[in-house]
Amino acid sequence: MIPKDHPRYESLVTREKLVEGVRRGITALEGLIAHGRGEAFDYILGERTREFALKAEKVAVAMMLLAKNPVISVNGNTAVLVPKEIGELAEIVNARVEVNVFHYSRERVNRIADHLLKFGVSALCAGDAELEGLSSARRIVDRRGIFIADVVLVPLEDGDRCEILKRHGKKVIAIDLNPLSRTARMADVTIVDNVIRAIPKMVEFARELRDLSRDELESIVSNYDNRTTLAEAIEGIKEYLESAKRII
Amino acid sequence: MIPKDHPRYESLVTREKLVEGVRRGITALEGLIAHGRGEAFDYILGERTREFALKAEKVAVAMMLLAKNPVISVNGNTAVLVPKEIGELAEIVNARVEVNVFHYSRERVNRIADHLLKFGVSALCAGDAELEGLSSARRIVDRRGIFIADVVLVPLEDGDRCEILKRHGKKVIAIDLNPLSRTARMADVTIVDNVIRAIPKMVEFARELRDLSRDELESIVSNYDNRTTLAEAIEGIKEYLESAKRII
Repeated sequence: MIPKDHPRYESLVTREKLVEGVRRGITALEGLIAHGRGEAFDYILGERTREFALKAEKVAVAMMLLAKNPVISVNGNTAVLVPKEIGELAEIVNARVEVNVFHYSRERVNRIADHLLKFGVSALCAGDAELEGLSSARRIVDRRGIFIADVVLVPLEDGDRCEILKRHGKKVIAIDLNPLSRTARMADVTIVDNVIRAIPKMVEFARELRDLSRDELESIVSNYDNRTTLAEAIEGIKEYLESAKRII
Repeated sequence: MIPKDHPRYESLVTREKLVEGVRRGITALEGLIAHGRGEAFDYILGERTREFALKAEKVAVAMMLLAKNPVISVNGNTAVLVPKEIGELAEIVNARVEVNVFHYSRERVNRIADHLLKFGVSALCAGDAELEGLSSARRIVDRRGIFIADVVLVPLEDGDRCEILKRHGKKVIAIDLNPLSRTARMADVTIVDNVIRAIPKMVEFARELRDLSRDELESIVSNYDNRTTLAEAIEGIKEYLESAKRII
């Protein structure tokens, strides 16, 4: 047990959840490495939700509320870290949840779906359609979900799929702590924030924005420029590094 | 099989080695997360050995050549990534190699030692002494190794042990891609470089410096300031981020 007053409590609990996720066959081994990359970027972003992330989270929620068929794509890491919150967000913005993984096996997909179900989330995972142009298992989608989606929220994504989703005319909202990644650069909205903070924050925004008119939602979305977000995230890291120089 | 001309070939092969290391019970699951953190820092350092790292690598080798009882501490990640090179370095600088891990089990330590032996490296791992003041399994050391060492090379280390090694009067050389980590700040020499580049580079330096006199070696070591190295590493990241802004 990690003591609650440990200075790195949150971070250590998150690691434990993922390691446990691997033991249960939900999280891929490669997912642990990906998480480590995220940890490092979170660290040099100060491990808190910055202004540019809040702005992107709000725009993302507005975009999902405006969408005809919004879908939240869930992989092994997301399923382990924020299952309940994914369900809450999906319910408020009226989105489908779909299991989609890079390291595919039917068993693993089913285990993720079962895990989500324990949190009341009924996730699509029929794997009865394919996204053309993508060679990885990420191409395997559900006919009622990503296949027909107009807006897809992809927490913790790989660049190839982000590109293909875009090519299929979908709007992509990515959650990625690396503002330089291909995913971050290809997405329509990039939330440079830790998924364990981003999704709960999006649930809050969803509650706040759910009763707005389409015009009001559209005005939130229309002024958004993702390149500004990424530039601000890079500036945020630079500032953090500059201030951290004092401790060395 | 990853094609050799893949733009991220080196990085993907390294990941595969670690994932394989987990399957063989050598690398800890937490080691994968730690590797991911390193990957992210390597990425924003441009994935190459920078000037400040070269300087630290040279000083580190001189320090090992000057030491009475230099020891190279090897954990599950290091054993999987650079076993042969660890053996080469140890031989030239006349250092002992010792297995020392955070996630301890007798079986795991033995598996790491067996793995090293396949590469001709006979590693200490008796676990017959303890470093006072340290609560983690890292305290378990070998009476002929870290226990009596005056200089310890610790690739991929945790901050707590680095602190205790220092308190026991040992000089610590760390290999850590995060220039802000506690390890990086506590070590006498911090090599901010990827272990898969750093160790081979240190082997080269060892060949170059092995025949120098003590006076010559001491002059290499004496002018070294680790805080300058860390500040240069931070500047290196800031420069990389600044230049990367063009791609967003």
